[in-house]
Amino acid sequence: MALSERYTDEHAVAGLDTKFPEIETWKNSFAGYEILIDDPEFTSVCPKTGLPDFGKIEIRYMPKEHCLELKSLKEYLFCYRNLGIFQENICNQILNDVVKATDPVWAEVKGDFRPRGGISTVVWARYPRPVNQTEVPPRAV
Amino acid sequence: MALSERYTDEHAVAGLDTKFPEIETWKNSFAGYEILIDDPEFTSVCPKTGLPDFGKIEIRYMPKEHCLELKSLKEYLFCYRNLGIFQENICNQILNDVVKATDPVWAEVKGDFRPRGGISTVVWARYPRPVNQTEVPPRAV
Amino acid sequence: MALSERYTDEHAVAGLDTKFPEIETWKNSFAGYEILIDDPEFTSVCPKTGLPDFGKIEIRYMPKEHCLELKSLKEYLFCYRNLGIFQENICNQILNDVVKATDPVWAEVKGDFRPRGGISTVVWARYPRPVNQTEVPPRAV
Amino acid sequence: MALSERYTDEHAVAGLDTKFPEIETWKNSFAGYEILIDDPEFTSVCPKTGLPDFGKIEIRYMPKEHCLELKSLKEYLFCYRNLGIFQENICNQILNDVVKATDPVWAEVKGDFRPRGGISTVVWARYPRPVNQTEVPPRAV
Amino acid sequence: MALSERYTDEHAVAGLDTKFPEIETWKNSFAGYEILIDDPEFTSVCPKTGLPDFGKIEIRYMPKEHCLELKSLKEYLFCYRNLGIFQENICNQILNDVVKATDPVWAEVKGDFRPRGGISTVVWARYPRPVNQTEVPPRAV
Amino acid sequence: MALSERYTDEHAVAGLDTKFPEIETWKNSFAGYEILIDDPEFTSVCPKTGLPDFGKIEIRYMPKEHCLELKSLKEYLFCYRNLGIFQENICNQILNDVVKATDPVWAEVKGDFRPRGGISTVVWARYPRPVNQTEVPPRAV
Amino acid sequence: MALSERYTDEHAVAGLDTKFPEIETWKNSFAGYEILIDDPEFTSVCPKTGLPDFGKIEIRYMPKEHCLELKSLKEYLFCYRNLGIFQENICNQILNDVVKATDPVWAEVKGDFRPRGGISTVVWARYPRPVNQTEVPPRAV
Amino acid sequence: MALSERYTDEHAVAGLDTKFPEIETWKNSFAGYEILIDDPEFTSVCPKTGLPDFGKIEIRYMPKEHCLELKSLKEYLFCYRNLGIFQENICNQILNDVVKATDPVWAEVKGDFRPRGGISTVVWARYPRPVNQTEVPPRAV
Amino acid sequence: MALSERYTDEHAVAGLDTKFPEIETWKNSFAGYEILIDDPEFTSVCPKTGLPDFGKIEIRYMPKEHCLELKSLKEYLFCYRNLGIFQENICNQILNDVVKATDPVWAEVKGDFRPRGGISTVVWARYPRPVNQTEVPPRAV
Amino acid sequence: MALSERYTDEHAVAGLDTKFPEIETWKNSFAGYEILIDDPEFTSVCPKTGLPDFGKIEIRYMPKEHCLELKSLKEYLFCYRNLGIFQENICNQILNDVVKATDPVWAEVKGDFRPRGGISTVVWARYPRPVNQTEVPPRAV
Ligand SMILES: [Ca+2]
Ligand SMILES: [Ca+2]
Ligand SMILES: [Ca+2]
Ligand SMILES: [Ca+2]
Ligand SMILES: [Ca+2]
Ligand SMILES: [Ca+2]
Ligand SMILES: [Ca+2]
Ligand SMILES: [Ca+2]
Ligand SMILES: [Ca+2]
Ligand SMILES: [Ca+2]
Ligand SMILES: [Ca+2]
Ligand SMILES: [Ca+2]
Ligand SMILES: [Ca+2]
Ligand SMILES: [Ca+2]
Ligand SMILES: [Ca+2]
Ligand SMILES: [Ca+2]
Repeated sequence: MALSERYTDEHAVAGLDTKFPEIETWKNSFAGYEILIDDPEFTSVCPKTGLPDFGKIEIRYMPKEHCLELKSLKEYLFCYRNLGIFQENICNQILNDVVKATDPVWAEVKGDFRPRGGISTVVWARYPRPVNQTEVPPRAV
Repeated sequence: MALSERYTDEHAVAGLDTKFPEIETWKNSFAGYEILIDDPEFTSVCPKTGLPDFGKIEIRYMPKEHCLELKSLKEYLFCYRNLGIFQENICNQILNDVVKATDPVWAEVKGDFRPRGGISTVVWARYPRPVNQTEVPPRAV
Repeated sequence: MALSERYTDEHAVAGLDTKFPEIETWKNSFAGYEILIDDPEFTSVCPKTGLPDFGKIEIRYMPKEHCLELKSLKEYLFCYRNLGIFQENICNQILNDVVKATDPVWAEVKGDFRPRGGISTVVWARYPRPVNQTEVPPRAV
Repeated sequence: MALSERYTDEHAVAGLDTKFPEIETWKNSFAGYEILIDDPEFTSVCPKTGLPDFGKIEIRYMPKEHCLELKSLKEYLFCYRNLGIFQENICNQILNDVVKATDPVWAEVKGDFRPRGGISTVVWARYPRPVNQTEVPPRAV
Repeated sequence: MALSERYTDEHAVAGLDTKFPEIETWKNSFAGYEILIDDPEFTSVCPKTGLPDFGKIEIRYMPKEHCLELKSLKEYLFCYRNLGIFQENICNQILNDVVKATDPVWAEVKGDFRPRGGISTVVWARYPRPVNQTEVPPRAV
Repeated sequence: MALSERYTDEHAVAGLDTKFPEIETWKNSFAGYEILIDDPEFTSVCPKTGLPDFGKIEIRYMPKEHCLELKSLKEYLFCYRNLGIFQENICNQILNDVVKATDPVWAEVKGDFRPRGGISTVVWARYPRPVNQTEVPPRAV
Repeated sequence: MALSERYTDEHAVAGLDTKFPEIETWKNSFAGYEILIDDPEFTSVCPKTGLPDFGKIEIRYMPKEHCLELKSLKEYLFCYRNLGIFQENICNQILNDVVKATDPVWAEVKGDFRPRGGISTVVWARYPRPVNQTEVPPRAV
Repeated sequence: MALSERYTDEHAVAGLDTKFPEIETWKNSFAGYEILIDDPEFTSVCPKTGLPDFGKIEIRYMPKEHCLELKSLKEYLFCYRNLGIFQENICNQILNDVVKATDPVWAEVKGDFRPRGGISTVVWARYPRPVNQTEVPPRAV
Repeated sequence: MALSERYTDEHAVAGLDTKFPEIETWKNSFAGYEILIDDPEFTSVCPKTGLPDFGKIEIRYMPKEHCLELKSLKEYLFCYRNLGIFQENICNQILNDVVKATDPVWAEVKGDFRPRGGISTVVWARYPRPVNQTEVPPRAV
Repeated sequence: MALSERYTDEHAVAGLDTKFPEIETWKNSFAGYEILIDDPEFTSVCPKTGLPDFGKIEIRYMPKEHCLELKSLKEYLFCYRNLGIFQENICNQILNDVVKATDPVWAEVKGDFRPRGGISTVVWARYPRPVNQTEVPPRAV
């Protein structure tokens, strides 16, 4: 079995210098509740092979003053359709952009990607970034 | 892809000034137990498009002296059938009205709405409103 | 939509003055373990409409010196078949009777009832009765 | 409905004086990991009716120096095939024998038995035996 | 039922002296997120019978500076295809090699193996190795 | 295993001499379509043991001039709640009464009953009664 | 159990004299293929109780020269939202209107409605209307 | 991989000379209907290894004058618990004994057995025995 | 509810004049067998809104002398990623191109598309094109 | 997207000249019944990439005088573990070898393979080879 080509340093940061559009928001009227948005139709492109990737993106957050405007969010996610970018980076990039747009109490982005080469990947990125984890936490869902 | 029209400030508060009927109650005989009521037939109207929204509303609470009377609750939820109101606001409004009717130890309203534009939304509103959350909590179910 | 008739105070306590039979037990030989008994064939009668209710009753407990004798428990649950009693009261009544019969370390009775008017109800009653709950707990299963 | 015959004190301890074979082990090379063994083909006999019982036994433990040898464990579980013993006692007996054989950090035996008379039973026995439980714990799976 | 042959001490360490290839990595750009990699096509060989074993391997970790390169990981897992090694040892060996390659904040390897003799096994190995566990933890998933 | 008592000839016809109420109908406006009515809350009594039976009754038919009126059908099915009658006979009796009430093009009654003694039963009765079946037909659903 | 009120002749034809809008079509380019359209968000009103009904409508057909235009179909189905009409009549009415709009080779309308009083209903109406059915057909799905 | 031992001619007929008890029946009152009996708790012994086999037996038939008496059937199936017999032969033997007991219009016995060596087996035996099958039939369920 | 804009005649044929690449094949060695290829990652663009559509394409056929080469098929399906074309037309176009490439005994293309506006569509196109269908066929799967 | 390399004529017949071992049989005692053998642990190698393929093989047949001996069948299937051969050819080769070993009334081999490049394949090969199929048959399962 010859599996010779690897990800390069260029692949590792591909797409991260993209100028993504801002996600618009609407003014929130209530305090301390939780929202989960589920997009099972996410697709991007592998920066190395040029082949499409498919996955399901879930954004979960507790709003402060602003809620994600869904049509704007959909346009934002549409920007990845023809972009070469790693799956791990997708989730972290979306998290950063959601946090920038809404300044939430907390937020989580989960990406559940379809198998490639028989292997599938799930990524969870969280804000605030956890620090001082010293044990294996229970598996997230 | 042109997704031009957005929610306005009017949309963000549409329906919140409605005068909802009070939900009747019956006198509770026991202490410290938990009730979950599940309505998979909830429907309302999108304040922007005028199109119907569909979802499943779950109300979970620990009663003190009063329990939700189911026929009255059903009439209450029926009031949203032709009302223009956001999904996030629906859950918070129902929570407030349930708390006003029963004065519970605690209560939670979950709304799980069917997809629009391929994207679906779930909302959890809780009483008492959580404060000082500094980390991402485990995903609710 | 005319949903006029409501539960009365008589309905709210219907069936609670019933003299239920004692549930027999057998002598336990081990310490600190947990038992779950699942009856998916529970049925009672609505005190208001006279129509049958159907549900699944789950009894979970940690025995001290006595375990529930299953045939006796089945006879006990059979007593609700033609009894008019609310679903919330069923679970609390069973909990009280299980605790009286076995004096357990702890016990929980869950009732998961089939929909009426499109709405279904789940009830959890627990011994010892929880006190000082100040936040919404995670959803039980 | 006449459900007259009950478990006697003899039934309550039936099978517990059996001399079960020792379960063999093999030497563990790693520290602090967790093993779950799942036997969905367990069968024993009801000590009162002589009818067969069927269930699924799950053994979960963290080994210290010894791991359960699977063929020996299978022979051990096979000894219950024609033995009259209660379901609650089965789980506690297996737990004791697993602990004796492996001296684990901790261990749990779960028995999920098929319905009899429409009612089914699940049992969890744990080592070390829990003490001072003063509240209902979340439901185990 | 004659189930005579057992695992020997040679079986208990079979395959552990193999020189596995290093798993390559790529440079991580974000902090404090979680990755789950799922290989449902894992296969190895039983050191005693020479028969193939099949299972699903899940690797979950929080990266520091390096992420697992998937093609390299696939080549690494392919090395077990014709190797005689116990299922418990597989998970611990993979964990050690993943930790060596990525120096993660934490990592977990789960192996869920298909039944043999009607019995199936699941193994969880975790880094850092848990110490001072004095109670049965909730079941991992 | 001593399973001595059997069904007698009286058991075999128990309940069949009951005077069931007529099922009311409403006037059909369309031709050649198919209706399936599903009652998952059916319960009757075993004529031998006096114990309750539980099942799901499905009525499927092509109406001619009359359709089953649902409230009347529900009252009709409620008559079995405390009636001693075999499961096979239940389905044939319901079929005969549905045919008498509606004079349909064709009709089928399926009863799917919960397990007793670990064994469950499903019954299909059809109108017109099939004749000259000389081979095993595909399994109905 | 007093279930006194029944459907009247007025109920049996309620809504059938409604003037439904025409469903628009687009010109088909291919021959002999099959289309299934699935609307899980259908709702209407019970003509007797005034309470909402909920169901899933599936339209299956083989087009000749015209295909159903989906936005127009959605508007058409929206007309039932506040209309009092029986479930059986809904399916036959939709079938007639689909046939009128598209003149298909064949068509089928299935309505799968949520339970009322514990009982649920499924209806299949087909064009051309079947004639000379002399046996019970296999169950449709 | 050394898989040397095979089934012998003795294994191929093991258990077939057993004198099984007759299955009792009760007198049928209706014509042309269909009964399915499902025993998910069947167990026998492999004649070669002496190890237990587990499976689910389904008996489907159209009765003429006699129906299978369930307690007697259960006793009959219990006779296989400690009998060495092949899975294919089990289904054919049960079919022959069911036909002898009830003289049905037709009958089918399906055995769905748990995996051994990773491979599982399902068997369908039918009365009357099919003749002149010249093509592969659709898969039975 | 204002759902004003409709499909035009241009929309009805959009994309059909595309010059799709040929699908390559490899030489088949066997006669009379059946192949099903399943692509759950199909995406195209709605010709009217410019929004992406998502679906699962299944191609089923009996080869004569040529089999579909999978990498070439994947490239072919990739051509729809940024193409404006109706879902019904997609399935018919793929069918025509598969037939042109392989000259099969028969072939079927099924497209199962995700919901838009709450409504989802499934399409089956078959070669040879069915003629003289005079009744509603059973539902395909 | 560059997907340049294709299957060559050598790939199309790779593995077909292998000398597979004969599959042993045992003598059948009954007529006209059906056997399904299910191996969910099949693995082979792609002749082009050298990467492993995984799938589930199901063999269904009606025996005449000989039944497949399972241990021998398992050894036979094990021969594909390190063999380079196409998925379509695997199923046809197994069918031919099963027919040669047992001379059955009829036989079918189904291979359900895990996805590669996001696309998965299922193959059905049947004996006797179907001839004169002029329409698309219903989908096999
Ligand atoms: Ca996954
Ligand atoms: Ca959802
Ligand atoms: Ca949608
Ligand atoms: Ca429920
Ligand atoms: Ca209801
Ligand atoms: Ca269970
Ligand atoms: Ca498992
Ligand atoms: Ca096995
Ligand atoms: Ca069943
Ligand atoms: Ca039972
Ligand atoms: Ca239904
Ligand atoms: Ca199976
Ligand atoms: Ca096995
Ligand atoms: Ca669908
Ligand atoms: Ca598949
Ligand atoms: Ca893949």
